[in-house]
Amino acid sequence: LDGAAMAAARSLQDRLTKPAGSLGVLEELSVRLAGLAGACPPPVPQPATVAVFAGDHGVHAQGVTPWPQEVTAQMVANFLDGGAVINAFARQTGASLTVVDVGVATPLKPVRGLVAKNVRRGTRDFTVEPALTRAEAVAAVEVGIGVAGDLVDRGENLLVTGDMGIANTTPAAALIAAFTGADPAEATGRGTGVDDDTYAHKTSVVRAGLDLHRPDPADPLGVLAAVGGLEHAALTGLILGAAAARVPVLLDGVIAVSAALVAAALAPDAIGAMIAGHRSVEPGASAGLRHLGLEPLLDLGLRLGEGTGAMLAVPIVAGAVRVLHDVATFDSAGVSEK
Amino acid sequence: LDGAAMAAARSLQDRLTKPAGSLGVLEELSVRLAGLAGACPPPVPQPATVAVFAGDHGVHAQGVTPWPQEVTAQMVANFLDGGAVINAFARQTGASLTVVDVGVATPLKPVRGLVAKNVRRGTRDFTVEPALTRAEAVAAVEVGIGVAGDLVDRGENLLVTGDMGIANTTPAAALIAAFTGADPAEATGRGTGVDDDTYAHKTSVVRAGLDLHRPDPADPLGVLAAVGGLEHAALTGLILGAAAARVPVLLDGVIAVSAALVAAALAPDAIGAMIAGHRSVEPGASAGLRHLGLEPLLDLGLRLGEGTGAMLAVPIVAGAVRVLHDVATFDSAGVSEK
Repeated sequence: LDGAAMAAARSLQDRLTKPAGSLGVLEELSVRLAGLAGACPPPVPQPATVAVFAGDHGVHAQGVTPWPQEVTAQMVANFLDGGAVINAFARQTGASLTVVDVGVATPLKPVRGLVAKNVRRGTRDFTVEPALTRAEAVAAVEVGIGVAGDLVDRGENLLVTGDMGIANTTPAAALIAAFTGADPAEATGRGTGVDDDTYAHKTSVVRAGLDLHRPDPADPLGVLAAVGGLEHAALTGLILGAAAARVPVLLDGVIAVSAALVAAALAPDAIGAMIAGHRSVEPGASAGLRHLGLEPLLDLGLRLGEGTGAMLAVPIVAGAVRVLHDVATFDSAGVSEK
Repeated sequence: LDGAAMAAARSLQDRLTKPAGSLGVLEELSVRLAGLAGACPPPVPQPATVAVFAGDHGVHAQGVTPWPQEVTAQMVANFLDGGAVINAFARQTGASLTVVDVGVATPLKPVRGLVAKNVRRGTRDFTVEPALTRAEAVAAVEVGIGVAGDLVDRGENLLVTGDMGIANTTPAAALIAAFTGADPAEATGRGTGVDDDTYAHKTSVVRAGLDLHRPDPADPLGVLAAVGGLEHAALTGLILGAAAARVPVLLDGVIAVSAALVAAALAPDAIGAMIAGHRSVEPGASAGLRHLGLEPLLDLGLRLGEGTGAMLAVPIVAGAVRVLHDVATFDSAGVSEK
């Protein structure tokens, strides 16, 4: 983060026609984005795009969710048809949607709009063996880095993390437990809303995976390969790619947070590009955000994924930066100071 | 609220391609707006407009704020020039701005865009005498009702409360204490950020006004006249006018909440049209929202007024309703259910 640009943004905030500090967390956000861009004012983070990475999970075989695995591919079709909640929110926001098959189990027909980057047709069951080889994990991270580069090259000024993958809160919980040290019981949530029995079982599945692999947080790619997912790995790459380009990346819920922990373990400076969009109902998301030192902008009880919570925060991030561009100073507007 | 439309919205939410309940508070919001409109889906609350009512305050003479009174008129000019934070946020949201002089002390030149409805050049000092006569309070309420009617007639589907008035958190605190029964110490906040001495003095000023007038919450217009403000009264009217037209009204911070308490005391059904946009730093705002049974959508540490916090919530409200219009059902999208 560029200290001079941040100082300039702080000084500008104090001269704008409003009481100093009266924009709350939006003032610090605008300062940080100035630091990220190395400019005051930083670019207004528009246009924005959500990159939805889809993948399946071998651990689905353990019965961690009542939803059938084919829903992942069906929802990819729904995204491409414009019928999912993330499509509605993206339209509301004026953002575009990028749908990437990085690991769907069902073979998908090549259709317009689908970015076909399947690394593997779903992960292996991490209660039996590592979910991915290290090479597969690296390949999926590289998919995300590549997508980030393409999106930034075409002029996107804000990247939003999106995901789809039936059972994907289970590897997210395992990643969060591995990186934060939280117990599986603290890191695991109810995902789509599983009942008490399934929840208890899901927690034991997460614990079994961690006990089997004993993932070492000092080896982030090793953790990702052992208990992660292909969409989690691709999101790690998206975050790293955005940070390298000094473009902000807005984190959605628990899947994004688990990927952010991997990214931060690989490159701590990447945290400077991360904005937490909303507080997922999933407890692991809060544990991960605490570990990253990020406070989410929204807390609306969402637990859907797809990038929906983060997409709702896009206008707020844009508004925070727009203040630095549009608002008059006391001098320029002839407004008296106290 | 129309029960059949609400039941239809609840049933639709459960058939959309997402886990039931996964949109958190946005689902209940969409249901309530269906009930308000008497239709499922209800109209998408766009376009939106913020009505900024400006007024001055006799109690300014008591030294409750370090800002000079002429800032009210200077900020009105800033709104009309497009240079204030509310202008930046409205541009970001695609909303329009309606600026109304309902009680500015400084005579304002008639300029394009200014709605000239001055009832009185500022209130009287409520520590000495009633701030307004009952007739003046009613006239200011009628200004707000009239503005609401004009905005609804021209096709606005969401009204946002805005305000400007140096010292106006002092009458807001008095109104909130009167209607909620909160002690002045709980209802009074630091406004633009006053220091400890000014804050203690401000609290004693609120207490003195309440002790002098002993306002009776069963006589809402009497309370408004005794310790209120002209922009507070106009916002009461805006809320009542929106509710009568079954158009949602998004509440900003402590000024809007104090006006909402008056509106709810006059017409309890009006609460059904109210959406709390954000949680102001002002403690009185939270006390008032509790009394109204409303939970704010945002909590970003804002304490600016002008309608800024509520304006940031506009895309969220629109997104909540858009889900009912745009999102496919499990049947229509061919997505399997659990």
